[in-house]
Amino acid sequence: MSITNIDVTLRDGGYRNGFTFPDGYAGEHARLSVKAGFDWVEIAYRNGSFNPAISRGMTGLGPNDYIAEIADIIGAEHIGLILHPANITSGDLQECYTAGARLVRMCLSVTDPGPGLRYVSEAREMGFAVCVNFTRASRLDARSLVDLSSRSAESGANAIYLADSNGSMQPGEVSRRVTLVQDVSGLDVGFHAHNNLGLALANSLAAAHAGAAWMDSSILGMGKGSGNLISEQWIAHLERHHSDPGVFDLGALLDLSAHLRDSVPESTPVLPHTDLLLGRFDLSVEHSDRVSADRRSQVHVARELGRLAVA
Amino acid sequence: MSITNIDVTLRDGGYRNGFTFPDGYAGEHARLSVKAGFDWVEIAYRNGSFNPAISRGMTGLGPNDYIAEIADIIGAEHIGLILHPANITSGDLQECYTAGARLVRMCLSVTDPGPGLRYVSEAREMGFAVCVNFTRASRLDARSLVDLSSRSAESGANAIYLADSNGSMQPGEVSRRVTLVQDVSGLDVGFHAHNNLGLALANSLAAAHAGAAWMDSSILGMGKGSGNLISEQWIAHLERHHSDPGVFDLGALLDLSAHLRDSVPESTPVLPHTDLLLGRFDLSVEHSDRVSADRRSQVHVARELGRLAVA
Repeated sequence: MSITNIDVTLRDGGYRNGFTFPDGYAGEHARLSVKAGFDWVEIAYRNGSFNPAISRGMTGLGPNDYIAEIADIIGAEHIGLILHPANITSGDLQECYTAGARLVRMCLSVTDPGPGLRYVSEAREMGFAVCVNFTRASRLDARSLVDLSSRSAESGANAIYLADSNGSMQPGEVSRRVTLVQDVSGLDVGFHAHNNLGLALANSLAAAHAGAAWMDSSILGMGKGSGNLISEQWIAHLERHHSDPGVFDLGALLDLSAHLRDSVPESTPVLPHTDLLLGRFDLSVEHSDRVSADRRSQVHVARELGRLAVA
Repeated sequence: MSITNIDVTLRDGGYRNGFTFPDGYAGEHARLSVKAGFDWVEIAYRNGSFNPAISRGMTGLGPNDYIAEIADIIGAEHIGLILHPANITSGDLQECYTAGARLVRMCLSVTDPGPGLRYVSEAREMGFAVCVNFTRASRLDARSLVDLSSRSAESGANAIYLADSNGSMQPGEVSRRVTLVQDVSGLDVGFHAHNNLGLALANSLAAAHAGAAWMDSSILGMGKGSGNLISEQWIAHLERHHSDPGVFDLGALLDLSAHLRDSVPESTPVLPHTDLLLGRFDLSVEHSDRVSADRRSQVHVARELGRLAVA
């Protein structure tokens, strides 16, 4: 099992702390991350997330000097950014490359994939490694998956990522979708887990067993809501069962984990009830506000919203 | 999938707070636990854990009046205790039954299973439901498992539990061992997870798919070290995929979760590095002290101890 590992802490963890880490934190994080064995460090969005208004901090904006600063420490060959097509221009792609990024991941709009796929082609021509990310993969039916996978392959992407944004997917479902996307596209497949139902690790194992070759994780699981696949656990698994000696450095990984824990209070592992319910009823974070403080009504509202979302 | 669920929070969680919960906590916990859909609430050890010196609090000792107090609230048919044969007498079994317990789980000594198995037979005759718990199941080879499983069946046990005490087992391994024990004994099999490597849920799912019919979990995962299977996630899974309406009450479950969180500071979810390494190298908690504060040396020492433990 050979996995390309992306550390998404600085980016997805940004949802917990307004995309603002302490001065100097990101550089030291990136250094330890590469030392621990990560292939790529996803250091930021560029010009904001899906909702640019809530992602104004450094790891939400990914400006050129920030990219250059981190690339000086770990080398461009480890620097990745994630992009929403609506937030960027071709000029941004070029600037990111010049500043020192070598991986971009394009979040694809299911209803309007054209612009994202054109950027994919452009980024490949510039020399980037390029992943296409299908967000809210739990809500994509098989026909959409097939269509988007084919078009992603035609656009020149290196890999397709399934993102379980709602944290609602089950291992068997993950396995079937990874297989489908792989079959249709002929590309490497990646998986991005959310831990709403505690299934981040079980789903990532299922993805890997189905042949997924790229995996996202974050230190302490620091990511939106319940967080992501926990790097410490995932890397310990790979180190024990699937790697040659020296590929991973558990000491550096635990140093990184302690550094994050001690530097960023928002990294504390959490089990939020709202996110558990969002996962249970396959709802996205946009529904968080509708789920009220009283737990009995939370369950009721989530159930009703889940029905509406399926209908 | 029909699972008998045991809530082990009060007992295994006791390792976090000296087996001492706030006054009145256990009763309210038990009430909400049964309301949420648990079949059994394991309210205590009797006369201490494997190491009686560290388990002197109420849920470490399980005295008669405590059993009777909780039985008054939820009924004897939901009250369980776990027992180390070295700590009890036949008189204890009788007293527990009289006070209002109806399930006992016997931790079996691999090197000297005789006394435990004699108590199993006695407890069945008294009218208890009886589980035999194989602790440190990761360290039992197939021949020991076969031998202990046959003898447990002959002694009249209702079910055999595999306890992943070191939190080191993998899903495939869990699946194979559940199948083996089931085949040999013809009994129901249960699984008790520890979350050192984050695999508590993945392993429990594997156990259930292999046919395990009993499952332990604890609220917020509150248990020794990294804790147990997290009830909130496990019950959400069962409620969503494997139960008739009304079997589980997610509202009561989240009430219970909030009640524990607000009443018991030690219930906070944690990701201790020492326990991660114990799991990675399949070591028991007795080795915790040997794993020093420096992470690089931690990894080294754990690796060496792991080699010694295997040899």
